[in-house]
Amino acid sequence: MHILILGAAGMIGRKLAGRLARDAALDGHPVQRLTLADVVAPTAPAGCPGACDCLAVDLSVPGEAAGLASRRPDLVFHLAAVVSGEAEAELEKGYRVNLDGTRALFEAIRREGEGTDWRPRVVFASSTAVFGGPLPDVVDDDYLLTPQTSYGTQKAIGELLLADYSRRGILRGIGLRLPTVCVRPGRPNRAASGFFSGIIREPLAGQEAILPVPDTLRHWFASPRAAVGFMLHAATLDLHRLGDRPNLAMPGLSATVAEQIEALREVAGDRAVALIRREPDPAIERIVEGWARAFDPARALALGFTAETTFADIIRAHVADEMGGRIG
Amino acid sequence: MHILILGAAGMIGRKLAGRLARDAALDGHPVQRLTLADVVAPTAPAGCPGACDCLAVDLSVPGEAAGLASRRPDLVFHLAAVVSGEAEAELEKGYRVNLDGTRALFEAIRREGEGTDWRPRVVFASSTAVFGGPLPDVVDDDYLLTPQTSYGTQKAIGELLLADYSRRGILRGIGLRLPTVCVRPGRPNRAASGFFSGIIREPLAGQEAILPVPDTLRHWFASPRAAVGFMLHAATLDLHRLGDRPNLAMPGLSATVAEQIEALREVAGDRAVALIRREPDPAIERIVEGWARAFDPARALALGFTAETTFADIIRAHVADEMGGRIG
Repeated sequence: MHILILGAAGMIGRKLAGRLARDAALDGHPVQRLTLADVVAPTAPAGCPGACDCLAVDLSVPGEAAGLASRRPDLVFHLAAVVSGEAEAELEKGYRVNLDGTRALFEAIRREGEGTDWRPRVVFASSTAVFGGPLPDVVDDDYLLTPQTSYGTQKAIGELLLADYSRRGILRGIGLRLPTVCVRPGRPNRAASGFFSGIIREPLAGQEAILPVPDTLRHWFASPRAAVGFMLHAATLDLHRLGDRPNLAMPGLSATVAEQIEALREVAGDRAVALIRREPDPAIERIVEGWARAFDPARALALGFTAETTFADIIRAHVADEMGGRIG
Repeated sequence: MHILILGAAGMIGRKLAGRLARDAALDGHPVQRLTLADVVAPTAPAGCPGACDCLAVDLSVPGEAAGLASRRPDLVFHLAAVVSGEAEAELEKGYRVNLDGTRALFEAIRREGEGTDWRPRVVFASSTAVFGGPLPDVVDDDYLLTPQTSYGTQKAIGELLLADYSRRGILRGIGLRLPTVCVRPGRPNRAASGFFSGIIREPLAGQEAILPVPDTLRHWFASPRAAVGFMLHAATLDLHRLGDRPNLAMPGLSATVAEQIEALREVAGDRAVALIRREPDPAIERIVEGWARAFDPARALALGFTAETTFADIIRAHVADEMGGRIG
């Protein structure tokens, strides 16, 4: 099996590549080749069982998507994106990468597949940012997509393209609306949602963290471990079960910032909590307050997708996976 | 006031231009200039009170949208599109015109407006084809967009772009999801929905018409007269009333094909009805059966949009507006 990961240098991409390399198989099929692509060449995961090609690719540059498609992977994970804060600050870059790049990929697959029976499965990372206020307390699977950011708009467009290209039989798509992935390891990125991880990750490491929004803000979360699990499940699921709606809200858990903080106290004590410094940022609050607070992801649950059910479990997953089980 | 109509050679575009020329004013402002654009140069309406420029423009050709934007109209009606049957048959053409063309227009407005306070109102013609089955019997204003055609996909993407560019303050957008416009005058076009008009229009003119779907098929309609009314109302409405959701389902009426036929009998008698010939077409049925059957357009009604309430009224509007009040 040949697997292509786009956005393989990103956080989820690296974890996914590492997991595929370790497992050396997907759904009983050996992983013979991994093609890892990103705007900077990704690093090959340790112990890759077959061939592993690491490529610097910008999908929005003419010809680059075609080059990837000509490799004819059986499975494509499309995680490449400019994140929300950056897509909001830089309109042209956001549309170029998130819209043009995604469309170039799907078009390259169409052209490469013409006259052949090559129809790769495409797992597309969408986001709950496709939803925007005013929203009901719990968003169900039939609710209107009304993004309030350019990033959310671009992801919603990606979903529509994925559905149309799947319906036409050009590719076999499944789109996953990822909850805010938390706790993100490593350094902050330019996502407006970054503080949700920061207020857990930095205190666990003995460092101060900035909280730019009120404690009462409620949001929808899943761990990086759960996100990788979604991707792998989407890669093996019988796609006929999706009907004509290949895009799905993923499971997660709904928590307020206050509940996040109490879970941090439960796992790491008062000393960690004391490292959170409140510094309101109206620009971040304006972006985040329009986001969904909770979902009823009935379709995804029925299809076997699973996630954590307590925020303390999310924190413990971070401590186990990123900190060797020891709080710094 | 300077008004630009894109798609001005189309059926709604011609009626709208004619109406603006006749009224010579919109919301109390005199119409000083009409710019009418289409892929073939439109014809100027009779009695245009101010300047009237008729241009052949393909929005998807680089530079053409910029040329239009440089004229700085106060109001843009964007009706230009490849219709559903054609966009389904010709993937590249549909995406080029319906997606790239719309995006080029919005981008041209952004660039032209930079550093100025020019922010035109853009009335965008969307379609109920943004919805696809399985659907509830009545679709409300919060229901998910799941197009089952490339045309519907492209219109849904246009809505998302309109909302994002409006939110960013680049333009002042309002998108109208038009019901199937019926009775369309003139010759059939390549829309998959064409027969809904054909089974009324041809018999009224004493000609045979083909019915490719079952009598039980239910659909959502408004007359061309109502559609022009939607456009003019959207052109003058206080857009702040839309909140962050500038795209709206328009009012209409829900009727089965059997109810259409009974209304034809009411207006034109058994002889007209006898001219309808049943000739099932699975390709058309497959497209149309996924479309919405009825809407609860609560937002549009609250904003003052209005349409016919009986199908016989729709037929009478056609007889009055297109046949000089006399059934052929």
